[in-house]
Amino acid sequence: MSEWTKHDLIDLDELTQEEIELVLETAKSFKEVSARDVKKVPALRGKTIVLLFSESSTRTRISFELAAKRLSADTINISASGSSMSKGESILDTARNIEAMNVDLVVVRHQSSGVPQILADGLKASVVNAGDGCHAHPTQALLDMFTIKEKFGKIEGLQVGIVGDILHSRVARSNIWGLTKLGAEVTVCGPSTLMPIEIERTGVQVSYDLGDVIKRSNVLMLLRIQKERQEDKFLPSIREYAKEFGVNAEKLKSAKKDILIMHPGPTNRGVELSAEVADGEHSVILDQVTNGVAIRMAILYLLLGTKEEG
Amino acid sequence: MSEWTKHDLIDLDELTQEEIELVLETAKSFKEVSARDVKKVPALRGKTIVLLFSESSTRTRISFELAAKRLSADTINISASGSSMSKGESILDTARNIEAMNVDLVVVRHQSSGVPQILADGLKASVVNAGDGCHAHPTQALLDMFTIKEKFGKIEGLQVGIVGDILHSRVARSNIWGLTKLGAEVTVCGPSTLMPIEIERTGVQVSYDLGDVIKRSNVLMLLRIQKERQEDKFLPSIREYAKEFGVNAEKLKSAKKDILIMHPGPTNRGVELSAEVADGEHSVILDQVTNGVAIRMAILYLLLGTKEEG
Amino acid sequence: MSEWTKHDLIDLDELTQEEIELVLETAKSFKEVSARDVKKVPALRGKTIVLLFSESSTRTRISFELAAKRLSADTINISASGSSMSKGESILDTARNIEAMNVDLVVVRHQSSGVPQILADGLKASVVNAGDGCHAHPTQALLDMFTIKEKFGKIEGLQVGIVGDILHSRVARSNIWGLTKLGAEVTVCGPSTLMPIEIERTGVQVSYDLGDVIKRSNVLMLLRIQKERQEDKFLPSIREYAKEFGVNAEKLKSAKKDILIMHPGPTNRGVELSAEVADGEHSVILDQVTNGVAIRMAILYLLLGTKEEG
Repeated sequence: MSEWTKHDLIDLDELTQEEIELVLETAKSFKEVSARDVKKVPALRGKTIVLLFSESSTRTRISFELAAKRLSADTINISASGSSMSKGESILDTARNIEAMNVDLVVVRHQSSGVPQILADGLKASVVNAGDGCHAHPTQALLDMFTIKEKFGKIEGLQVGIVGDILHSRVARSNIWGLTKLGAEVTVCGPSTLMPIEIERTGVQVSYDLGDVIKRSNVLMLLRIQKERQEDKFLPSIREYAKEFGVNAEKLKSAKKDILIMHPGPTNRGVELSAEVADGEHSVILDQVTNGVAIRMAILYLLLGTKEEG
Repeated sequence: MSEWTKHDLIDLDELTQEEIELVLETAKSFKEVSARDVKKVPALRGKTIVLLFSESSTRTRISFELAAKRLSADTINISASGSSMSKGESILDTARNIEAMNVDLVVVRHQSSGVPQILADGLKASVVNAGDGCHAHPTQALLDMFTIKEKFGKIEGLQVGIVGDILHSRVARSNIWGLTKLGAEVTVCGPSTLMPIEIERTGVQVSYDLGDVIKRSNVLMLLRIQKERQEDKFLPSIREYAKEFGVNAEKLKSAKKDILIMHPGPTNRGVELSAEVADGEHSVILDQVTNGVAIRMAILYLLLGTKEEG
Repeated sequence: MSEWTKHDLIDLDELTQEEIELVLETAKSFKEVSARDVKKVPALRGKTIVLLFSESSTRTRISFELAAKRLSADTINISASGSSMSKGESILDTARNIEAMNVDLVVVRHQSSGVPQILADGLKASVVNAGDGCHAHPTQALLDMFTIKEKFGKIEGLQVGIVGDILHSRVARSNIWGLTKLGAEVTVCGPSTLMPIEIERTGVQVSYDLGDVIKRSNVLMLLRIQKERQEDKFLPSIREYAKEFGVNAEKLKSAKKDILIMHPGPTNRGVELSAEVADGEHSVILDQVTNGVAIRMAILYLLLGTKEEG
């Protein structure tokens, strides 16, 4: 198996196919840890991990925090509001100061694209991107791939439909990178106002017909609609969006019998998908959440746990 | 001794007398742990406990958090403001997502009555009610009973007066359940506008004469007055309330020599009781706080610690 | 070596020269711990440390939290906004309630001078002042002295210039105490409106000429300018301040070759010092941050770790 040499995780485009598969394999063994009665291994005892979230995201923060704690690392939470960022420091200056306290790894979520890369360039500590602006969300894509592989035993050759606001979605962007690299055929689908120009150049197909995408997909990934976009005039109305691009039981009748319904959460029930579909037999939304902890344990472990001889 | 079979703790009405006594016995041994130099036992190592507080309550949150940490469990704090509840998710959906991260137990505080029961019905994880609306606050009642038993050696046959806003008090409600089940004689006392209709049907006596209640009580429980109630026209004025239902040294002269003065905190000094009484020889208010950690350790341990063979 | 007998740390004026040196020695060995791969020792396992911050300060809070965690203590964070202080309790009442949960030590940051002393007088738990109003910030002064001694091998006989808002600075006040006690010669420098009356009586010299202070100093400590002071009419304008009292590479040309540039952070780049100087060869600003964790480990350890036989 491939050896891990990376120092940071900013996006999936920097990982080879072998490295992605190494992450998925490592996560598999950590998923088993979280299912135990004693959900804890000493792998990262005495390491310090900082969770620097300048954009609120309870689930992602908790997922990383649990991952770190189950590896026995010490964690420090920093939210934007309470931080000295409000005292006029640049985020890199803040991060350098935190790093000076002998921090091993910084998990960063930021509303501006590119901030994790700036930190990775300026810090000796490892940096993990937990979502930056409209750019990337690599651990989300990894947990999505893990979930698909868990259900189908493979990713290569699968038809994956990604539906929604492709233009603003870091989840779509990271998944497109990862899934195409592992050999899936990806089709993106959504309102034309929310479709990036020349998106085909990333190796995906474009469709504006949800019915057709449902029919041929093995996996359907629904993206969260940010209701604010309507004010920005990207969306006609939430009701219209739900009618055309929302998934309900009726529309799923034409799908393959073993189609997977995925969503990065939190869902807008009645918009991207009906409650019936969200809680239905095809939905793996809660599996995604469970697998998220395992993926993040794998990433933290690969970045920190194997440097002991260094 | 009785064996513990419960999966959740929503209110005391679901516990038998034997089960309440088992909690009190278990807390006794955990109180000893908190008095040690090394206040920690490995009982819940590798367990994950989530503290989901949608209503701010520093003391109760800290009490549960310390209880969990002294049992070596991992804890995650979620406050309402930072959570995805604000993104439109229902609380059950939020809780299901958190549970999917292999969480063992959720402690929930919520301003709406009934939320802990909804979570208990929908989750596989154990749920502990840390106070819901005007409904129940079972761990508060348990720590009150523990404190009474610690001082008098028994609860049966004691006269307990509960004074204040009975109508809106989850503390009163849970204590009435627990204390009457263990054989105490409870009298409630307060302004008639703050007295629930047909409260006698819960097995208590009603009095509007504080002097009389003070005279015959072994234990006097004073409830916190929410100053907001005055705006709701439930209260004439804080000053008038203090004059009629506040306890001071003068009024205590007619009390039994060994009367206990209790308050769930935080106190409004000068309203429910004078500073002199709050800090006086009869006050066990700080004992209540100390015992709260022990009771919560007992509850967490009974709900999680004995399932290991499961 | 001197033995530690103190129960609290409120300011440096209560420490003898021997006690300050004991703290610096102890910190030296803890600095080594933070540089290890496994940054953790079991010294304070089972101890409970509360971080009570009623004034936001991410760095100082994190520094204490990491110090506590690396000593294996359990930590509880309490911020003013979420605490029952907002429910009308006095801070001493809040602290007494927290202490009743068998807390061993309270670290307190407060905007009002004197609050840590009030807590120390009223609590059995140890109290550490993490900065109170314009009064004192003893751990900052200790980490500054540690950093100076680390670079020069001594403090006695060094010329230390402290530049900025002397009047409102708890950092200046604590450093003056500590540095003069250890035999340094301290000169304070800043706008006359920000210079305390009769400051010379603390054993320092006063200068209004930054050029002169730069020329003779071994160490230059720059204080953070609170931009709010301008509204209070203490400062003419930030630009004027920067011109007269800000340090840049040009002004540093007349300095000693091995001058140290220090700042308690967070810096206002372009005001107290230029970015070039902040990141330059003389700057030990990040060393101060690193040493802060070691100093706080030493203080927590001395206050708690050696009482085991007690």
